Amino acid sequence: MKNQTLIQLALDYFDLAPALAMAQAVHNEVDVIEVGTPLSKSAGMLAVRTIKELCPDNLILADIKTPDVGGGEAKMAFDAGADWMTVLGAAPLDTVKLALEEARSRPGKEMFIELTGVRDIISRAEEWREIGVERMVYHRGWDEGNLSRTWEKSDWNTIQDLIGMGFKISVAGGINLNMIGFFKGLDISVFIIGRAIRETPDPAAAAREFRAAIDSFQMGR
Amino acid sequence: MKNQTLIQLALDYFDLAPALAMAQAVHNEVDVIEVGTPLSKSAGMLAVRTIKELCPDNLILADIKTPDVGGGEAKMAFDAGADWMTVLGAAPLDTVKLALEEARSRPGKEMFIELTGVRDIISRAEEWREIGVERMVYHRGWDEGNLSRTWEKSDWNTIQDLIGMGFKISVAGGINLNMIGFFKGLDISVFIIGRAIRETPDPAAAAREFRAAIDSFQMGR
Repeated sequence: MKNQTLIQLALDYFDLAPALAMAQAVHNEVDVIEVGTPLSKSAGMLAVRTIKELCPDNLILADIKTPDVGGGEAKMAFDAGADWMTVLGAAPLDTVKLALEEARSRPGKEMFIELTGVRDIISRAEEWREIGVERMVYHRGWDEGNLSRTWEKSDWNTIQDLIGMGFKISVAGGINLNMIGFFKGLDISVFIIGRAIRETPDPAAAAREFRAAIDSFQMGR
Repeated sequence: MKNQTLIQLALDYFDLAPALAMAQAVHNEVDVIEVGTPLSKSAGMLAVRTIKELCPDNLILADIKTPDVGGGEAKMAFDAGADWMTVLGAAPLDTVKLALEEARSRPGKEMFIELTGVRDIISRAEEWREIGVERMVYHRGWDEGNLSRTWEKSDWNTIQDLIGMGFKISVAGGINLNMIGFFKGLDISVFIIGRAIRETPDPAAAAREFRAAIDSFQMGR
């Protein structure tokens, strides 16, 4: 049986209050709630703790994109209530190892590699596979997306290669309803949706539309 | 005349309280106080705001190692009272540009590239120089330092090359009093000291010893 494809709501805010309101409005319609990188720096782990408290039935991802001090930052995020946390793909391999070790020592906790800014994805992926990394966020960066970069066939191919290597892939970066079809043929683990849910008149309804689109994506996969 | 070499105290803590106590104890002896990456995620920008309030005569560096959303994260840090902030060397060039633009729009604010995890430093540095980056933190990562890596002649050479390209260089990563001599011959802009000040019986006295060592380093430079 195929794995269920999950929906993750990205709370890309600088202020905690609107993030909490959005989490409250949408959490019943999504699987995972992400405390975005800017929010995790603006409000700190208070954001993770509060959202876990408000949404105990969701998985919580702390997108802290750890660049160093891997064991300590993973512990900090998990202690605050995060189920999942991210380490930056550009972090030294030692950092990845230490965060992974921390995640493995705690049942249900997972570490993801976050690919923002990584240029040599496949050769790095070989190093990560060797030390036991299982999950990655394939991310077209926010600034890249706003300024220049679109999703391209080369992204599709890289994601296919990573899945072929055995990784579970989350995808993120300006994904809207019309773009779900772009990923057809790929066994995507998690769709991360931000603005296309948040910046709509009825975010819960938008999340339900994504659920329907992703269910039909799954069946055709 | 040569520029004054500055001393920066790195507050590498996960909790705000001991960080504030250390800042209070040492701020008269150092030029710059750094809100470390883990602290900036644990306590958020409250850490920057509070330390700026307690230490108004120091420069404050928010070591947030921005990986994306460069304009927004730079604004967040500067709004909280940071004078300086860091962008990750692995960030997309668009992110560096946007953070730099934000810094330049505000008198006295500066953006640093943070080199943790960057493998192709010199070729990246050429890209950064082209868009106007002036400052960098040359950082032997915490995890690397703890697990394996020492400062080597190749580091010295790379720093010399970067200074030759016109960059102002801060150095960080396990630097203690005995290691100041390692940097002889290099026009270092900022020495970043963490454990070698914090983890001593009298941190203010340790900072004064660094000041003396760095003054004599400067004269012999």
